[in-house]
Amino acid sequence: MKKGIFLKASLTILCAASLLTVQTTQAVGARNPVNFRGAAKYVFYFIGDGMSTPQIHAAEAYLASLENDNAVPGAPKSKKLAMSALPVYGMCTTYANDRFITGSAAAGTAMACGMKTNIGVISMDPDGTTPYKTLAEAAKKKGMKVGIVSSVSIDHATPAVFYAHQPSRGMYHEIGHDLAASGFDYFGGGGFKKVEGDLGNVLDAVTANGYRIVTDKDEFLALDPETGDKVVAYNHTLAGGQALYYEVDRPEDHISLAEFTKKGIELLDNPRGFFMMVEGGKIDWACHANDARAAIEDTLAFDEAVQEALNFYNQHPGQTLIVVTGDHECGGLTLGFAGTKYSTAYENIELQTLSYESFNNTFFTAYKETSTWSNDSDDMDDTLKTEIESSFGLVYNELSDYQKVQLERAFDKSMAEHAGSSDSRSEEEYLLYGGYEALTVTLTHLVNNNAGLSWTSYSHTGLPVPVMAKGKGCAKFQGFYDNTDLAKKIARSMRVRLNN
Amino acid sequence: MKKGIFLKASLTILCAASLLTVQTTQAVGARNPVNFRGAAKYVFYFIGDGMSTPQIHAAEAYLASLENDNAVPGAPKSKKLAMSALPVYGMCTTYANDRFITGSAAAGTAMACGMKTNIGVISMDPDGTTPYKTLAEAAKKKGMKVGIVSSVSIDHATPAVFYAHQPSRGMYHEIGHDLAASGFDYFGGGGFKKVEGDLGNVLDAVTANGYRIVTDKDEFLALDPETGDKVVAYNHTLAGGQALYYEVDRPEDHISLAEFTKKGIELLDNPRGFFMMVEGGKIDWACHANDARAAIEDTLAFDEAVQEALNFYNQHPGQTLIVVTGDHECGGLTLGFAGTKYSTAYENIELQTLSYESFNNTFFTAYKETSTWSNDSDDMDDTLKTEIESSFGLVYNELSDYQKVQLERAFDKSMAEHAGSSDSRSEEEYLLYGGYEALTVTLTHLVNNNAGLSWTSYSHTGLPVPVMAKGKGCAKFQGFYDNTDLAKKIARSMRVRLNN
Repeated sequence: MKKGIFLKASLTILCAASLLTVQTTQAVGARNPVNFRGAAKYVFYFIGDGMSTPQIHAAEAYLASLENDNAVPGAPKSKKLAMSALPVYGMCTTYANDRFITGSAAAGTAMACGMKTNIGVISMDPDGTTPYKTLAEAAKKKGMKVGIVSSVSIDHATPAVFYAHQPSRGMYHEIGHDLAASGFDYFGGGGFKKVEGDLGNVLDAVTANGYRIVTDKDEFLALDPETGDKVVAYNHTLAGGQALYYEVDRPEDHISLAEFTKKGIELLDNPRGFFMMVEGGKIDWACHANDARAAIEDTLAFDEAVQEALNFYNQHPGQTLIVVTGDHECGGLTLGFAGTKYSTAYENIELQTLSYESFNNTFFTAYKETSTWSNDSDDMDDTLKTEIESSFGLVYNELSDYQKVQLERAFDKSMAEHAGSSDSRSEEEYLLYGGYEALTVTLTHLVNNNAGLSWTSYSHTGLPVPVMAKGKGCAKFQGFYDNTDLAKKIARSMRVRLNN
Repeated sequence: MKKGIFLKASLTILCAASLLTVQTTQAVGARNPVNFRGAAKYVFYFIGDGMSTPQIHAAEAYLASLENDNAVPGAPKSKKLAMSALPVYGMCTTYANDRFITGSAAAGTAMACGMKTNIGVISMDPDGTTPYKTLAEAAKKKGMKVGIVSSVSIDHATPAVFYAHQPSRGMYHEIGHDLAASGFDYFGGGGFKKVEGDLGNVLDAVTANGYRIVTDKDEFLALDPETGDKVVAYNHTLAGGQALYYEVDRPEDHISLAEFTKKGIELLDNPRGFFMMVEGGKIDWACHANDARAAIEDTLAFDEAVQEALNFYNQHPGQTLIVVTGDHECGGLTLGFAGTKYSTAYENIELQTLSYESFNNTFFTAYKETSTWSNDSDDMDDTLKTEIESSFGLVYNELSDYQKVQLERAFDKSMAEHAGSSDSRSEEEYLLYGGYEALTVTLTHLVNNNAGLSWTSYSHTGLPVPVMAKGKGCAKFQGFYDNTDLAKKIARSMRVRLNN
C-alpha cells in the first residue's frame, strides 16, 4: 500500500464515523473507493453566531438539569448535543486583521474566504477594494448547488460574506443586490433590511433573477425540488432586524431553522453535490442581551438544524462533510457566578418563558405607557411583580434584599428613561444594563445568576471557538488553528481553490 | 494488512507528529515497529489546575500583545503556547458525581482513576470507603518509575489523587503518609501542609521510606540519576499553603516548575519507562483571586514545563505520550469586558509587577498597620497611590470617576476590616471582593477590566477543559468526552488496567 493512499485511508477511517464503527466504514470504503478519494460532495457549514464552548455547554448542562437535579449523586450533569457528538474536535482563533475581538463580518470573511480582513468588511480586503472569493462561490463555480440559511436577516454579515462583497456590513441594500445576482440556489431564514434604495427594489431584483419568493410555511414545506426553482424563503412575520423570532418565542406557523435546513437539503440535493451554510444568528443577539434562556433555545434550534444534516449524512456517509463552529463568543458567558459559588440550578432557566425582546414587546412597553410611576421613590407594583413571576419565574418576595435593590433601581431607570427624565447612562449604568432596557436585562441577569450563569459583556469576546466535524476529510479539522485555516481546510475538502 | 493493525497504524501516523511530518514518522515506525505497537513507555500528564480555554488563550493573546499592539492591522493577535501546538485537541466535561461544578479532588480522581466521585474525595468511591486504583499506581505496578510534580503543596488534592486514598482532601497528614508509603520515585514542587499528627512526623516517614529530601536549588540541580535515590524536593522557602511562589514573584534561587519537571525527567528516565504528572496548581489560586497577571505567568510557567516534556519527546518520539489538560475552569475568566466593549490592551497587564498576594505581604499589610485612616471619609493617601502605580500600573488620576469610587470604597472596606470596625461582608460586598482583601482584588479587577478581561466568580465554573496531546496513541484524545474517559484513554495508551 502506498504511503499517500495509506494516509488518506487512515484519515477517512477516523472521520467517516466514530472509531467504534470503523469496521463498517471500512467495508463501505472498500465497495466505493472513488467516494473516499475525491472531494466532499455534500458540504454543510454550520456557524453559530456568538457561539463558543460556554454557549454549547450551557445548553448541554441545562438539558441534563431538566432531567435530573445536579445534586443527585451519579446523575449525568451534561447531555451531549448532536454537534458535540461529532467525532472530530478542533479549536479556532477568531481575531480580525485590525482587532483582537472580532465582529461577524471580519470573522465571517475569514471563515468564508480564508483571509483576514478589517472589522465590518464583507469578503473584501482590509481596504474594502478587492473582493475575495468565497467557499460558496467556489462551490457554485465547480457546479455544486449552493444554499445559504440564517436565523437573522439574509443580508446580515454572516450570510452576506458567502455571496456579497462590500466594504461595509451596513450596506444592506447593496448586499441584497449581491444576493439577487449571486446565482445561488437557495436562501432561507430572515428577510431583507433595506429593500428600497439607489439600486432599485431588492425583491424585484431577486424575482427578476429567477427566484421564487416564499413566505408561507405551508407553501414552503410543499416546495418541490422537481420544479428546479431557485428559492428565497422567509417567514411571513419577522422580528426586529428582519430576523426570525427567537426560538423560545417562535409561533407554530413560523418556519424553524431546522425546517429551513431540511427543505434546503431537499432543494439542493443533486448529482453534482451542494454547499450549504446555516447560521444560528440569534444566539449572538441573545448573548449580547445577556439572555441565557433565549441563547440556549436558539443553540438547541441550531443543533436541530445540525441533526438534519446528520440525517442526510446517514444516507451519504462517504460523500458528506459536516463542519460546525462559531464565529466568536458573545457576552462573556460563564458557567458559574460569584454569588452562587459552586452550586447551579440550570433547570430554573426554564421558568423564563419568553425572550427579553418578547417581554418588552408584549408587556413592558405597554406597561410603561400606563404606569403611574413618577419618581425613584415609587416601587414596582403588583401588576409588574406578577408579570415578572410568570415570565421569569422570579418571585419578588423570595429575592434577596440586594437583588430587590438591583431590581428597583433598574425599574426606576427604565421608567425615568421612558418619562424622558433620566440622565444618559453613566459608566456604572452601562456596566449594569449595556444598551438594553434596564429592568429587563436586570431580570435576565437575576434569572441567570440565580441559576449559576453569568455574563461580563454586552459585546463579543476573544475566546476561541470550537470546530466540530464529521465525514469526508474531517480529520484535518482537529487541532488548534486560525479561522482563516478553517476556510482553507474546507476548500481542501471540496477540492476548490480560494484566495491563496 | 489486517484491519486491526491498519487502524493502529493510522492512529500512530496521526499522532506521532503533525500531518506535515507524517512521512518521517512512518519511516521511524518502519525501523522500530515494536515501539509503535506496544504501550507508551514515557507518559507525561500535565494538569493545569483551574485552566481551561480562557486561561490558555488569555496567555496567548497577552504574549502577542507584548509584541504588537492589537490595533496594528495585520499583526498576529495570538501567540501559540507549546501546549496549543500539540497536534491533537479534545475537550472534557468536568462535573463531579454530586455536583456540576467540580473541585480538584473529584476532578483529579476522575482524571487519575477513570471514576466519578464526590466533592472532596481523594481517589476513593463517593462514600469514601473503597479506594480506586490510579494511573500512577498502575504504572508503578507495571515496573515504570513514577514522578509527581506540583506548584502547590505536594499533599494538595491534584497531586494526592495519584498516590493517596482518603475520604477527604483536608486529611493532609494522612495524605502525607500515603505519599511516604507510595513507593513512587520522585515528588517535586511544594511542601507538606500537616507534618505533625497522629501518624507521626511525615518527613520522618518520608525519610524512613528511603527518600532523600532536597530543598536547596543548587543541590537539586546537581541531583545525579546514577545514585538511584528516590527524591522529595521542594523550595527552601514556600508561599502560603506550602506552595511555590507565584511565578510572577519567584526569586532566582527558587526552583521553577519547569526545573522540577526537567530534573524529574532525568531522575525517572530508565529502560522500563516512566509516568509523570505535573500540576500547574497556582493557576487555580490566581484565578480564585481574580488576578490575571499571576494566572497568566503561572500558565506560562506551566507551559515551560510542557516544553521540557517536548524536548524529551524529540529524543523519544515513538515511545512518548504527552497529554496536557486542566481539571476545571476557575474564576469565570472571559476575554472581554462590558466597559471596554470590543477593545483590548492586554499588554497593560504587564504593568502589574507582582501578585495580589505579594502586594499584600510586601506592602499593604504593613501599610494598614501604620495608616492614619479612621473612617470612610478618609481617602487614599499619596503613599498608597504611588505604590499602586508602581505595582499595578494604575495611575489614580487617570481612572474614571466611577473607578475611583470603586477603589475608595474598597479601600475603606479593607481599612475598616483591619480596624475591626466593619460589618461582615454583605451580599454585594461578597460579589465585589469574594473572600479577598477588598482593595487588592479591586486593583486586579481594574487592571484586568481596563485591559479587556473580566471574571464572574471566586470559585470554579463548569466550562469544559481542553485536552491537548501528542505522541504515542494520541489520536484517541480527540473529540468531546468526559474526564473519566480521559483517564481510561491514558490507561489504554499505557496498556494498564484501571478500575473497570
